[in-house]
Amino acid sequence: MSLIFLEQLRSICGQAHVLAEGDLSAWEVDWRKRSFGKALAVVRPGNTDEVAQVVKACLAARVSLVPQGGNTGLVVGSTPDDSGTQVVLSLQRLRAVRQIDAANLTITVEAGCVLQHLQEAALQAGFLFPLSLAAEGSCTIGGNLATNAGGTQVLRYGNARDLCLGLEVVTAAGEVWHGLSGLRKDNTGYDLRDLYIGSEGTLGVITAATLKLYPLPAARLTAWAAVASMDEAVALLGLAQQHLGASLTGFEVMGQFALSLVVKHFAQLKVPFHESAAFGVLLECSDQESETHARALFERLLEAALENGCVSDAVVAESLAQAKQLWHVRESIPLAQVEEGLNIKHDISVPVSRIPEFVRDTDALLQKAIPGVRLVNFGHLGDGNLHYNVQAPAGNDAAAFMHEREDEVNTLVFDAVQRFGGSISAEHGVGTLKVSKLEHHKSPVALSLMRAIKTALDPHNLMNTGKLLRR
Amino acid sequence: MSLIFLEQLRSICGQAHVLAEGDLSAWEVDWRKRSFGKALAVVRPGNTDEVAQVVKACLAARVSLVPQGGNTGLVVGSTPDDSGTQVVLSLQRLRAVRQIDAANLTITVEAGCVLQHLQEAALQAGFLFPLSLAAEGSCTIGGNLATNAGGTQVLRYGNARDLCLGLEVVTAAGEVWHGLSGLRKDNTGYDLRDLYIGSEGTLGVITAATLKLYPLPAARLTAWAAVASMDEAVALLGLAQQHLGASLTGFEVMGQFALSLVVKHFAQLKVPFHESAAFGVLLECSDQESETHARALFERLLEAALENGCVSDAVVAESLAQAKQLWHVRESIPLAQVEEGLNIKHDISVPVSRIPEFVRDTDALLQKAIPGVRLVNFGHLGDGNLHYNVQAPAGNDAAAFMHEREDEVNTLVFDAVQRFGGSISAEHGVGTLKVSKLEHHKSPVALSLMRAIKTALDPHNLMNTGKLLRR
Repeated sequence: MSLIFLEQLRSICGQAHVLAEGDLSAWEVDWRKRSFGKALAVVRPGNTDEVAQVVKACLAARVSLVPQGGNTGLVVGSTPDDSGTQVVLSLQRLRAVRQIDAANLTITVEAGCVLQHLQEAALQAGFLFPLSLAAEGSCTIGGNLATNAGGTQVLRYGNARDLCLGLEVVTAAGEVWHGLSGLRKDNTGYDLRDLYIGSEGTLGVITAATLKLYPLPAARLTAWAAVASMDEAVALLGLAQQHLGASLTGFEVMGQFALSLVVKHFAQLKVPFHESAAFGVLLECSDQESETHARALFERLLEAALENGCVSDAVVAESLAQAKQLWHVRESIPLAQVEEGLNIKHDISVPVSRIPEFVRDTDALLQKAIPGVRLVNFGHLGDGNLHYNVQAPAGNDAAAFMHEREDEVNTLVFDAVQRFGGSISAEHGVGTLKVSKLEHHKSPVALSLMRAIKTALDPHNLMNTGKLLRR
Repeated sequence: MSLIFLEQLRSICGQAHVLAEGDLSAWEVDWRKRSFGKALAVVRPGNTDEVAQVVKACLAARVSLVPQGGNTGLVVGSTPDDSGTQVVLSLQRLRAVRQIDAANLTITVEAGCVLQHLQEAALQAGFLFPLSLAAEGSCTIGGNLATNAGGTQVLRYGNARDLCLGLEVVTAAGEVWHGLSGLRKDNTGYDLRDLYIGSEGTLGVITAATLKLYPLPAARLTAWAAVASMDEAVALLGLAQQHLGASLTGFEVMGQFALSLVVKHFAQLKVPFHESAAFGVLLECSDQESETHARALFERLLEAALENGCVSDAVVAESLAQAKQLWHVRESIPLAQVEEGLNIKHDISVPVSRIPEFVRDTDALLQKAIPGVRLVNFGHLGDGNLHYNVQAPAGNDAAAFMHEREDEVNTLVFDAVQRFGGSISAEHGVGTLKVSKLEHHKSPVALSLMRAIKTALDPHNLMNTGKLLRR
């Protein structure tokens, strides 16, 4: 049956686009190399109609499908299991920018379009597409939408979901839902768009999207502030929101230990105030008027913050090069962690108001459980989203620590998150990595609603089987 | 059985809060008095637990439930049918403001809280809750969320859905989903929140919500511009977005005939440029800095617009009183229409870029079908949302026109909307009024997905039966 099935896929997509032999690890192994899957085949349809035919063929043969974009996800959500029975459906050939509508401030692109290409296409037309994250050079917009990606501009522009007006989707039945809408208001029934967004390919395959564009800011300025505690960082955030309103487009916080790793492993980078301050805050202001205006706004804010006492020192980048350097420090934290050795990563959120207490409490609990443990704490404070990573005590073997303590540390951190009304996955999603954690921490009512929806829209459980919800 | 059932409801909510006799028309007749229903009873639970018990009692007795807030909807979505078998579940006693979290910029309120009270509670705490619409003095936030209400600030702050971070919902099974989250990022599964929002009470009952707050603007300024055509209005919108960015919080367009009705019926109101201009545009700018700054921004924009030629004349309100007067003109259009006599109302959206062509084409088609027909065209141009209302030719009897031509006019307008990629219900929802129109204009794939979701989450079809989807 397998050979006939593969022939069928080949007749849909063409011989060259059904891969069933040779090294398929680029599609089978996840980004962080935590899972080594085995695919029945990798199929690369060239358009929406071919995607629909592939889904129908899989449905008829009862073969499970794993949609995949740039395969840059962090929760093992887009690679097959090791059974050799799943088909990887790669969207990478659907990469066209279909339309830019300047007066409507929208862009319509196919799922396989790389995020950076999308940003560039918007820029070329004179607009901003604000979604921005570390993997933007290789992740695809389809994957961004399937996982409701976050990133560094959420504070102002929202998550991927907030940037999307309409979708084209191949349903689990292999039908095409033509929901590509450029409408900002449309109250004609259930919100199918937001249901498919963030469903991680378990309800259907996103093949294209209509997304919001924004006018380009006239100027963008970056500042770095030294703060003495997480409480002061939250106080600074409130002041910044008051002074800058919607011009505040970035607010990243970085703990002293995280910054010390950057200093240690990337000596060429200058990290402001890293010896004196418990936390560094990176602020970004996008201004519709001019650089002069943005600078005046920033100076007024920082004066108020120094006076109020929540900031002990601050610097505003004098040039684009300086601004890039400051962002480079922020972006180098994950790489510095790699240099330092494996650590236990978390992508959590709690209400902004509760972050100081959460960090105090959880730091103390971890120190008690593992004396000398080191916390690489940084993240998007404006969204309540911390990458609260746990590194072995100095001198300990990182791999052994990871192996022996990961479960214990995860349980401790996730239990704390739940006590503080937070989320165990703020922006990375669930994939297979967090399926059992989700069952533990999500409310049973919510889980049973989710299962009912899954069964209703994918009755044979063939769409990204085992991701997000257990098989 | 009916008596036993009513006794059960009384034992849940108390004698005084189950109404089954006397004049119940306040709950049975819709806002526009288009439907005269008959309820088995009106039940007014006092808290979430009582709501859950009522839903369970109705489920056990297989009695259909109609959730109701302020009963100000425009599509007959919150009143019972005339069978005398449905229970109206009024949320009006659940009206507490549960919490304001200043550092997190959130407010948590119960469903029955009147929108204006919510705005006032936010203001008292020093924040803005931006949802604003004509019925705000009596509509409730639960109804706003159930219908994903729009209004005049959508351009900047989005629809009700965009303002909501979390919900508490009584499901169709009578269980409570505690989804009240103050999180701006949470990727742990399907977006149940956005599914309940806009589902018009057909999947469950929203009992409370956590909503976004914004810093209060330092100043708000209003301007009125005269434009020669819808093309010029769209050009002005583009300029305004470029100059003002997120400070542009209102952009309303009004056709000359709509304004002439205001002049005719409310002689005390001064309508700028109404004799010379084909359209008036009301612009609002909310500024984080100062009135001086806002005024400078507005002046620069209007100078650019006069130079560009898309505006022939403009005035900026010199005082709050003048600004209120300009908004009063805009808000008087519906009342002026009432004075002029019944008309056929539409609440449509098309992509902003296509509005000029849509209006030209549809005006011509209507004139051809009904020579002398008059168009009361006004709306939220920034969102592509027009209230494109059709009034009888001068001298014709309005009621007779309505009776004879409503179907024909609706069909003509909705067919045009569909050709232009628009929506037949931009912000009012579907209710019972547009159920059959929705079946005609919505894609069969989307409808079958919606039906599958409805069956999965409300298998006995008891939640607001017959609304949004046919019975």
